[in-house]
Amino acid sequence: MSYPATIEKLIQELTKLPGIGRRSAERIVFHLLNNASKDDISLLSQRLSELKDKVRLCGRCHNLSEQEECPICVNPGRDRSILCVVERPNDVTSIERTGTFNGLYHVLLGAIAPLEGKGPADLKMDSLVNRIQQENIREVIIATDSDTEGETTALYLTKLLKPLEVNITRIGLGLPVGSNLEYADSATLSKALESRRAI
Amino acid sequence: MSYPATIEKLIQELTKLPGIGRRSAERIVFHLLNNASKDDISLLSQRLSELKDKVRLCGRCHNLSEQEECPICVNPGRDRSILCVVERPNDVTSIERTGTFNGLYHVLLGAIAPLEGKGPADLKMDSLVNRIQQENIREVIIATDSDTEGETTALYLTKLLKPLEVNITRIGLGLPVGSNLEYADSATLSKALESRRAI
Repeated sequence: MSYPATIEKLIQELTKLPGIGRRSAERIVFHLLNNASKDDISLLSQRLSELKDKVRLCGRCHNLSEQEECPICVNPGRDRSILCVVERPNDVTSIERTGTFNGLYHVLLGAIAPLEGKGPADLKMDSLVNRIQQENIREVIIATDSDTEGETTALYLTKLLKPLEVNITRIGLGLPVGSNLEYADSATLSKALESRRAI
Repeated sequence: MSYPATIEKLIQELTKLPGIGRRSAERIVFHLLNNASKDDISLLSQRLSELKDKVRLCGRCHNLSEQEECPICVNPGRDRSILCVVERPNDVTSIERTGTFNGLYHVLLGAIAPLEGKGPADLKMDSLVNRIQQENIREVIIATDSDTEGETTALYLTKLLKPLEVNITRIGLGLPVGSNLEYADSATLSKALESRRAI
């Protein structure tokens, strides 16, 4: 014996989501049954079903968007001569949250990962080259992850973009702000030494 | 700047669920966008919307059910002379999971909680008294929580059911299985001493 079929089926669907185990799914279902109104639930249900219909990728930078071009690409206040290249749309949000970057983005939609069978052709690199050739780009900041795949992609991009006569930079790698030298791993620490600057 | 409106609205709805903060909601949305098919999402959405339509309370024991009476109440293999009184439908599942109880249940749908304005009249006590009078009940096990509200409810029930000439028992309170005396709080420890048994 377990829950009624309707509840059991909903629990099954919820546990497919990341970070939600059976206990969390049960809590969510009982919360919905006890505290949420029928309107709350149908709103959630509706928001879910419209997700894939309404959200697409920006035609210029491949960020998530509801229009042909995303709000950042159409914003006249942004510096259109700097491109920040990231792996995923969420990375755009992370950088936007800092409030320190005012250029445009280019989302690769992944990184070079031979083990997953993902090569340069699977990434939005052609359109990056096109943009650099056609738009008036002064600097390309490569802001891929600092893991193996991200570094490989950064290296590949550097070689690919070298002939295009554009400034290529890589985001700084080093000690995270607020952390102790004592607890830093040696890979991070040697990167931090390598990227030391005069003060 | 944040996400496109569709994503932002879905995140808002998801963060209303228990145990889901903004970061978890973002992870879920990106999981749905990247890894889930449109069919997966509409299935989840459909399961959510049918929840309140299909699930109701059992007419006899007030457990969750999709029929007039719940599977436990209509099961001819259950001992119909023992009633286990619990606060919430989830408590039924917890006890069923142990596999050691074969009687019927009675769900009060809450506990006496004066601070929340919840008195005996708000609980399913009348129908409990009716069942004891009409069905052939031999024993009533009071399995409310061991917190203040649960204990108050247990005390109230004991007085209420005393005149009905039925055996009333309370589930055992004491040391949880697998725990150390050293780490037990003193309230639990004194309950454990109080409910000692001859071996």
